[in-house]
Amino acid sequence: RARLARLIQHPWFDRTILTLIVINAICLALETDASVMERYGPLLHALDKAILAVFVLEIGARLIVDFRGFWRDPWRIFDFCIVAIALIPATGSLSALRAFRILRVLRLVSSVPAMRRVVGGLLSALPGMGSIVLLLGLVFFVFSVISTKLFAQAFPDWFGSLSASAYTLFQIMTLESWSMGIVRPVMEVYPYAWMLFVPFIIMTAFTVLNLFIGVIVDAMQS
Amino acid sequence: RARLARLIQHPWFDRTILTLIVINAICLALETDASVMERYGPLLHALDKAILAVFVLEIGARLIVDFRGFWRDPWRIFDFCIVAIALIPATGSLSALRAFRILRVLRLVSSVPAMRRVVGGLLSALPGMGSIVLLLGLVFFVFSVISTKLFAQAFPDWFGSLSASAYTLFQIMTLESWSMGIVRPVMEVYPYAWMLFVPFIIMTAFTVLNLFIGVIVDAMQS
Amino acid sequence: RARLARLIQHPWFDRTILTLIVINAICLALETDASVMERYGPLLHALDKAILAVFVLEIGARLIVDFRGFWRDPWRIFDFCIVAIALIPATGSLSALRAFRILRVLRLVSSVPAMRRVVGGLLSALPGMGSIVLLLGLVFFVFSVISTKLFAQAFPDWFGSLSASAYTLFQIMTLESWSMGIVRPVMEVYPYAWMLFVPFIIMTAFTVLNLFIGVIVDAMQS
Amino acid sequence: RARLARLIQHPWFDRTILTLIVINAICLALETDASVMERYGPLLHALDKAILAVFVLEIGARLIVDFRGFWRDPWRIFDFCIVAIALIPATGSLSALRAFRILRVLRLVSSVPAMRRVVGGLLSALPGMGSIVLLLGLVFFVFSVISTKLFAQAFPDWFGSLSASAYTLFQIMTLESWSMGIVRPVMEVYPYAWMLFVPFIIMTAFTVLNLFIGVIVDAMQS
Ligand code: NA
Ligand code: NA
Repeated sequence: RARLARLIQHPWFDRTILTLIVINAICLALETDASVMERYGPLLHALDKAILAVFVLEIGARLIVDFRGFWRDPWRIFDFCIVAIALIPATGSLSALRAFRILRVLRLVSSVPAMRRVVGGLLSALPGMGSIVLLLGLVFFVFSVISTKLFAQAFPDWFGSLSASAYTLFQIMTLESWSMGIVRPVMEVYPYAWMLFVPFIIMTAFTVLNLFIGVIVDAMQS
Repeated sequence: RARLARLIQHPWFDRTILTLIVINAICLALETDASVMERYGPLLHALDKAILAVFVLEIGARLIVDFRGFWRDPWRIFDFCIVAIALIPATGSLSALRAFRILRVLRLVSSVPAMRRVVGGLLSALPGMGSIVLLLGLVFFVFSVISTKLFAQAFPDWFGSLSASAYTLFQIMTLESWSMGIVRPVMEVYPYAWMLFVPFIIMTAFTVLNLFIGVIVDAMQS
Repeated sequence: RARLARLIQHPWFDRTILTLIVINAICLALETDASVMERYGPLLHALDKAILAVFVLEIGARLIVDFRGFWRDPWRIFDFCIVAIALIPATGSLSALRAFRILRVLRLVSSVPAMRRVVGGLLSALPGMGSIVLLLGLVFFVFSVISTKLFAQAFPDWFGSLSASAYTLFQIMTLESWSMGIVRPVMEVYPYAWMLFVPFIIMTAFTVLNLFIGVIVDAMQS
Repeated sequence: RARLARLIQHPWFDRTILTLIVINAICLALETDASVMERYGPLLHALDKAILAVFVLEIGARLIVDFRGFWRDPWRIFDFCIVAIALIPATGSLSALRAFRILRVLRLVSSVPAMRRVVGGLLSALPGMGSIVLLLGLVFFVFSVISTKLFAQAFPDWFGSLSASAYTLFQIMTLESWSMGIVRPVMEVYPYAWMLFVPFIIMTAFTVLNLFIGVIVDAMQS
């Protein structure tokens, strides 16, 4: 255990892991290229498995050396989850999970202090946004129920269910094709539909603006 | 009356109302699902009516206990209006009002102090925006009249009336399909149409920016 | 002249002019409605001409009372220009000018002190934006020339001339259909077109952001 | 050499160069017009070559007068590169380079002190954005790999390769047709695609917002 601890704390250990993360990222990026896969497919797969094995051993070593400290550090838990995803057998309906092996490159964030600080800074802005995000969620819920009740029959693709409406309203909030794509067609059946959607746009724009201002004011005070 | 007052001020009273608001929201959300409605439709309707009855009694009780205080508290008036909407017979041309019963979930805002504060904060930014919103309204009015006069005959769907033009200009202000959807087709008939719409975009963008800056500066001073 | 001065300075004088501006705006708004025009067309035209005559007399009176003071006040010059536009005979190729008579409603801005202050505030932000707007103009000029030279032959509608390119680049800067509408079609002929347009988007977004920040910082210092 | 130095430092020297830059810009702008080219094409080409020759001589003179000082001034290196581009023989696959001769007008930026300051101000904001831009690059890389693996076969135009996916994700980040143009079609094949793209939009919007806030806070402190 003492030898393991010395190994982990050795400066070369972190550098090796970092290099492996980058090599792994390049491998997974190359796997997206069909012509590269044809030639080097088995090699890339083997390399991917080998690096995964090293990561598993590394996390195992860290757990043996300091089990409690591991679970107290959110970045270590993050590493653990990302590596664990890769161990789930990605067969059948879960085969899409294979695509998420690239998340391992996010270990770069937990390994490079400068990146940790940036992500930490971003995350620290989240708690202050809590109540206004809740309000935004409530507004979305109310408008989703109303637009589903009013437009589900005439526009099942856009407002057929509560989740379809929520997605469409998110699209409208981002101002993507809200008029030519959604509201003008709806207004051909329900001429007063703009009385629902224009206030929705103004309300969400104003709420999101205040979300931003909250973040700016918080950033300035610190 | 004293007993009613004690009942209303009992800590369990607010919790019960809050729980009923949430249950009511879930009911109204479930009503949007056709397969759920087929099975549990009558049950959901009955539950909805029962909860509405409790809300009516609650507001009645509050009115009996402190009639003047009720009308002085804007949140209470807000509750009153939301519940009153549900009592309007939603038949014939007013049947769309049934969809607005979900507004009752906004009682969550008036019942949870944290939400009250957030909404209060948002509303407090409005008065400072008054004169600039008025100016924006004037700009919209001027451009609506001009574009209706110039383009109503060639593009009746977009600029056929003052309200149609105002809606189209709102779409252009949000930058939604302004060029490929509206201005390029208009320029095929009136090649100089960009001389109206490009300044409109720049002016409204600049005005809205100043609206935002006003809100930011106000938020920083307090 | 002394009597004219007394008339102009009478509190009722400003109120009357203000009322006439509003009535005139309503008239011009009603003129956009075909069914109203059929019935009351001649009446509205007569009213419009009568109010214009009052405005001409008003400005004449102001000129007689204080000729130098008139030309020193930018708001008075603004009033003069707006009324003068209406006196240009709007026939032939200038018939579109008739639509711009509604600009007279902007006299509301020069007549209401609160509006004057808001517009003054907006305009005061402009000088500080000068050099960055110049830079943006230079960027537009450079990219317009390049994209005209490269894409004029294949895409004459979008990049056929310097002005067509400038318009298309303005559309791209506002992010309106830049990819699906313009750059993807261009990339089918010139696969590396994104190397021109993606940097253009990032550069203009960054420049406009700095324009905004300049306005915010200026607003905070005062 | 002393005479050359005196020539370069003469106030008329800078003014002449500035005038030539503007004349050159007008020439290159006129070259985009087919009817002008038909009449004055050879003249414009000759003028362009003559001005280029003057620029080459000017930079040569500056190099002779102060060789070390030249390479220490980033603006001079900028001038050198821009003029050097014009000397590359623009034939065959490099013929597109001819369009980039207009970059010479950017010498205006290095020649006018006010423009130098603005560009310097913009560039000074870049280093502070480093780590957050790196994070954004990492997010783009991860999502590009995932979306290529998942959607390459069904949507080769949008997600066929890593670079195609990166371009499509950039389009989605700018909110351009993200829903009607990309995500809705993808959801018809993969109904859960929104679970990838909606978080991507929220994450990048939040990251870009923080990029902006960083720039604002930096601008306020100085
Ligand atoms: Na769009
Ligand atoms: Na858009």
